[in-house]
Amino acid sequence: MTIGFEVLARDGAARRGRLMTAHGAVDTPVFMPLATTGTVKAMTPEGVAATGARIVLGNTYHLMLRPGAERVAALGGLHRFMNWPYAILTDSGGFQVMSLASRRTIGEAGVTFRSHLDGSLYELTPERSVAIQHLLGADVTMALDECTPYPAPHEAVESSMELSMRWAERSRHAFVEHAGHGVFGIVQGGVHPDLRLRSAARLVEIGFDGYAIGGLAIGEGQETTFAVLDATVPVLPEERPRYLMGVGKPADLVGAVLRGVDMFDCVLPTRSGRTAQAFTRHGTVNLRNAPHADDPAPLDPECGCPACAGYSRAYLHHLCRSGEILGSMLLTAHNLSYYADLMAAMRAAIEMGSLADFAADFVSSQ
Amino acid sequence: MTIGFEVLARDGAARRGRLMTAHGAVDTPVFMPLATTGTVKAMTPEGVAATGARIVLGNTYHLMLRPGAERVAALGGLHRFMNWPYAILTDSGGFQVMSLASRRTIGEAGVTFRSHLDGSLYELTPERSVAIQHLLGADVTMALDECTPYPAPHEAVESSMELSMRWAERSRHAFVEHAGHGVFGIVQGGVHPDLRLRSAARLVEIGFDGYAIGGLAIGEGQETTFAVLDATVPVLPEERPRYLMGVGKPADLVGAVLRGVDMFDCVLPTRSGRTAQAFTRHGTVNLRNAPHADDPAPLDPECGCPACAGYSRAYLHHLCRSGEILGSMLLTAHNLSYYADLMAAMRAAIEMGSLADFAADFVSSQ
Repeated sequence: MTIGFEVLARDGAARRGRLMTAHGAVDTPVFMPLATTGTVKAMTPEGVAATGARIVLGNTYHLMLRPGAERVAALGGLHRFMNWPYAILTDSGGFQVMSLASRRTIGEAGVTFRSHLDGSLYELTPERSVAIQHLLGADVTMALDECTPYPAPHEAVESSMELSMRWAERSRHAFVEHAGHGVFGIVQGGVHPDLRLRSAARLVEIGFDGYAIGGLAIGEGQETTFAVLDATVPVLPEERPRYLMGVGKPADLVGAVLRGVDMFDCVLPTRSGRTAQAFTRHGTVNLRNAPHADDPAPLDPECGCPACAGYSRAYLHHLCRSGEILGSMLLTAHNLSYYADLMAAMRAAIEMGSLADFAADFVSSQ
Repeated sequence: MTIGFEVLARDGAARRGRLMTAHGAVDTPVFMPLATTGTVKAMTPEGVAATGARIVLGNTYHLMLRPGAERVAALGGLHRFMNWPYAILTDSGGFQVMSLASRRTIGEAGVTFRSHLDGSLYELTPERSVAIQHLLGADVTMALDECTPYPAPHEAVESSMELSMRWAERSRHAFVEHAGHGVFGIVQGGVHPDLRLRSAARLVEIGFDGYAIGGLAIGEGQETTFAVLDATVPVLPEERPRYLMGVGKPADLVGAVLRGVDMFDCVLPTRSGRTAQAFTRHGTVNLRNAPHADDPAPLDPECGCPACAGYSRAYLHHLCRSGEILGSMLLTAHNLSYYADLMAAMRAAIEMGSLADFAADFVSSQ
């Protein structure tokens, strides 16, 4: 068997589920912290697990360049390398090749590009991407896709989507089935409902362990994101997990869970933790701002994370102003805890059939 | 009563002791990690305590500029501000005024200088330094001294030392006695035994809770440092702690403990932790070096720190090469554990009367 997924409860379109991987169960809806280069930035794995996370996302592009997939495999795989005993999803490398690599050339076979680290030449094909993810030991492998720019004309989005579907089929065939591991296809098609439907239908025809929605959160705005979800999610298989890639802000997560999405990743909580931005139950807080300098109160009195349990806003302000690493450590722990708590609260609300009320309360609290 | 100090065992000139502060007991000989701006860089307080540390050093110069001593006092003092329940020693600010501030002017009254952060004007007198340390809530307050440059002619060192002794007397008088808190004087006199003896005699005459040896580890070399200790330590009171400021490398600590020093601080283990340098039982290791890239072995198999318990040299190499914060976190934890373990081993050796053997073994292992 491949990766397991069970829907435990429903509330409207939203689902409370559980993903069964070779490295343990993951309760959904779930937010997956980024472990880009094999570390969740400014966090120990124990600290990540303490936020409640049981799955993180590794980046194929970064890891293939440094330290190298074959090296990670020789050292026992990514779980052992980074000392993370729980599940790992890896992306395909496609998105970051498009955004970070120089002199990239896209053809039918795949992408050739030069490393942003040392300029050396690489080729990433659907087969190589899946092989790299296998070498890393990913519990969830993502099919290679082309990331369509936004905005783009319908024709360009269409031909890009069709290339991604051909790559999806090759990715599926390259994937070696093994227990507790799965491969997800990625729906493309930009903001065009007709293309999204064709893409989703094609992926379902190929048959994947899960279905991701890609090519969003690249500047189209929340309303458009939600419109694409409204068009796409209903045609995805009920019994398989759905993953909205690269999204997003807390309000985006709430809206997407309402629409039936199960999995998320985003750089926001970790990156914000390194730039003095904190997410709280009463909106976002910039800890560099002067009013915090004398404030003995915790960042968020309802939060149980190490930053809120042990420190005042005044101290966090001091750390951020002084550029101290501990500021990044504490705020990242807080932001990941906030995201994990938000997902846990949505899971509980789905179980109680009260997600719509939860979402309304959430919007008014921000 | 002021701060307590008990000598529990002796081995030659070396002492196994215990400092009793308002924030707990500190076993000596002890290494004190730097918490310069109110944080041990790249460490949580829990992580610092897990290395075995029960005292850290805060910097008056940094804290008076940002966040400000009165602000820290209003927030409940430095222990509460930085969430550190154990002992804190603060320096006087003198050393860093000399090395970091711009346009400093030294007079009989004290030092005026401009902040390296924003150029604003400050005055630091012996009385103000002691008042700041009181506002911070230091368990151990250091007298303000002038840091004599090295090398310098005998006359210049002499007049500088005499100024420091007048400041020491003013610092002593400014110190408000309270239970579990103490003030230490600082022996100056450069590398000149006659000046060191006069300085020590003057401090003993004034009467302090402990005696520091300052103005070393500024380029004079280990042999010279040890020669100054050989001249100075024997004239310091047996029943009071002795603190060698700013020292040093592991071999410096071993040599100084042999000569009767009880307390140390140094930037080396924490700074090295942020520059890929690790201290091990078999010498120092630069984790950026290529041979570590494929090494599945731990940094130091005899070490129980989080870095050695959970990770390979290959992973630490990858973190250091990638500039990842987790690399600084893990190597700082390791280096502080190494220093703490070294001090614990010396305490055990003193109790068993085997410090000379320990020191010989140590030298041959490096």
